[in-house]
Amino acid sequence: MMHHHKTILEKVHEIHPLVHHITNNVTINDCANITLCIRASPVMAHAHEEVADMVNIANALVLNIGTLDPYQVESMRIAAEAAEKRDIPIILDPVGAGATPYRTQVAQELISAYPIAVIKGNVGEIATLAGIDATVRGVDAGAFSGDPRFAARDLAEKEDTIVAITGETDVIANAQQTIFVKNGVKEMGSISGTGCMAASLIGSCTAVTSDYLAAATTALCAFGIAGEHAVMGVHGPFSYKVKLFDALSNLTSDVLIKEGRIEKLE
Amino acid sequence: MMHHHKTILEKVHEIHPLVHHITNNVTINDCANITLCIRASPVMAHAHEEVADMVNIANALVLNIGTLDPYQVESMRIAAEAAEKRDIPIILDPVGAGATPYRTQVAQELISAYPIAVIKGNVGEIATLAGIDATVRGVDAGAFSGDPRFAARDLAEKEDTIVAITGETDVIANAQQTIFVKNGVKEMGSISGTGCMAASLIGSCTAVTSDYLAAATTALCAFGIAGEHAVMGVHGPFSYKVKLFDALSNLTSDVLIKEGRIEKLE
Amino acid sequence: MMHHHKTILEKVHEIHPLVHHITNNVTINDCANITLCIRASPVMAHAHEEVADMVNIANALVLNIGTLDPYQVESMRIAAEAAEKRDIPIILDPVGAGATPYRTQVAQELISAYPIAVIKGNVGEIATLAGIDATVRGVDAGAFSGDPRFAARDLAEKEDTIVAITGETDVIANAQQTIFVKNGVKEMGSISGTGCMAASLIGSCTAVTSDYLAAATTALCAFGIAGEHAVMGVHGPFSYKVKLFDALSNLTSDVLIKEGRIEKLE
Repeated sequence: MMHHHKTILEKVHEIHPLVHHITNNVTINDCANITLCIRASPVMAHAHEEVADMVNIANALVLNIGTLDPYQVESMRIAAEAAEKRDIPIILDPVGAGATPYRTQVAQELISAYPIAVIKGNVGEIATLAGIDATVRGVDAGAFSGDPRFAARDLAEKEDTIVAITGETDVIANAQQTIFVKNGVKEMGSISGTGCMAASLIGSCTAVTSDYLAAATTALCAFGIAGEHAVMGVHGPFSYKVKLFDALSNLTSDVLIKEGRIEKLE
Repeated sequence: MMHHHKTILEKVHEIHPLVHHITNNVTINDCANITLCIRASPVMAHAHEEVADMVNIANALVLNIGTLDPYQVESMRIAAEAAEKRDIPIILDPVGAGATPYRTQVAQELISAYPIAVIKGNVGEIATLAGIDATVRGVDAGAFSGDPRFAARDLAEKEDTIVAITGETDVIANAQQTIFVKNGVKEMGSISGTGCMAASLIGSCTAVTSDYLAAATTALCAFGIAGEHAVMGVHGPFSYKVKLFDALSNLTSDVLIKEGRIEKLE
Repeated sequence: MMHHHKTILEKVHEIHPLVHHITNNVTINDCANITLCIRASPVMAHAHEEVADMVNIANALVLNIGTLDPYQVESMRIAAEAAEKRDIPIILDPVGAGATPYRTQVAQELISAYPIAVIKGNVGEIATLAGIDATVRGVDAGAFSGDPRFAARDLAEKEDTIVAITGETDVIANAQQTIFVKNGVKEMGSISGTGCMAASLIGSCTAVTSDYLAAATTALCAFGIAGEHAVMGVHGPFSYKVKLFDALSNLTSDVLIKEGRIEKLE
């Protein structure tokens, strides 16, 4: 596993995979910059006229429904179909699933219709999609009294995919395995977009390996360690944000291996 | 009044109200992050399919016409109608009203059709909407030779609402009262989006009290004090921006009361 | 020439030209803020109802196809037609031309239909538009084995315009002259949007002079020097970004003349 993690980050650094995003307009710039920080190459395109062409040169596709509308949902369908044909990984960030019926429906449709490699959400979104009763308030994690690991495992089994729940402890699960990533700090929640950035990083890592479980683990572990490194000398959310991007950019495989706190549930 | 200010900021810090934004795509990330800095929770959604559902779980609605188009204007109508039904405050930022007829008309339509709690603009925008002759150049404050207090009062009386004009001295008025907030520094004008952020903060504060005049005053006073705190050790606009967000995040009710420079016009 | 450079930056500082952008939603905030850093005034508007009205009060128009779609392309046509009528400079940033047929076609259409003052791109985009064989990968510069100066000159001659290629050495050419700007550092490539920002700065400079060749040279030289100033004490991409904006904001004509490394090809 450790060997895999090293390989994946190093591969991203060497290959600079092209990660196509169809994403929300709140954190789109953060997604582009965090992708650059891990040395992948971001591209954003949504016109129906070109979205399949862009997917055809990309190494991964990130779909984020944070500010969805019908035009963009159709862009996602076209892109996902092109990604499926080329067998490149599709990452879905179902932002706000559970907050409105439209978001829930669109997320469900995308999961049903296309082979999603990784669904990355907060516990409220994932619980909603797993069919577990949860309260989602806007795009916050919402109230969910259950154990995230069960929500992740339930959705992973139901949809035969990988599910990643970000939180104090990140949970990454497929139908067979559950992994915990214990890196990260609460300051990451003080800025907008860390969830979206996590999806971009998962996209970057899945782009260089077929072991998507290891890729998602690497991405969240790297981001969590960067989050820990960024804390020192910070005076508030924006100076933290600056340091978070810098820290991820400076993260090496050696540090990832040394500082990663990954636990597998047998 | 002082007691109110303290209560409002503390309430925002405690309640974390959900502030729904339909806003421009230039400063949308700044609006999200400044809302988090005051410990409210931002959400952005514009699809006609879901915008009413999102308003139904929100505590305030911020409408900003900075990059409006017909689809978004319809989103604003649907959202405003839902907000009116639930009696949650609607904040309107009529960005660029007076710069083009379309912006002026849309702002006027929204003001006529829905119960706007606070109209927040620069002096050129407010003077335009008050029917006073003013020159608006793009989204700058433009040329207006008159006294902002009269523009604010005129529009407040005409539309029976609260009007907030940001500037060297902020003016907040309803038909009965005029309040001046003398906090703030010129550096706030060196970055894009401080006007938009002010509207987000007003939205956050109106979400926790029915005294919208006090809420708008608290919001602009808090932002102005943060602006003052951010000046020291700055090397240019972006380092100022980083410190501005940090400073607002660190602002307590005690400091707000101690450093606020609020004057009421009898 | 040196005299011109000084005049142009000083003029921008004094006149605060209004620069209308129709641009991508990834770097739109960066474009607004970099425009403010050079003391020009940014405005973004795309509604078909108002875009011509906004151009009618603007001093330059920047078109950037980074996240184009049919609605926005039509906005660009309306804006470009209005800009042509008023004879204000149009800057085209053909982001991703060559990456998808749609981008290439839209860029070609805009170049054919309207009098573009400056086409600013990376070498892959410009080579594509010049009809030279190039590989464009997403929005990266892509692979191009030829000499940028020939790509610039070819497109400039073919379209009778000014072409600016950003890169390790920037190349600015019209049919008669080729200019090299040797300022700038590799760190500028570590963040998203420096290409877009360069176009905003060219827009700001062309807005104050009819000598667009000198204006483009001033803009890229100023940005490159700011990029050099920003390097010291940086810990990663985001702290670099903060310093880049600060440095441009602090740049004076005197420093521009002293530190500019401009070479003309006779």
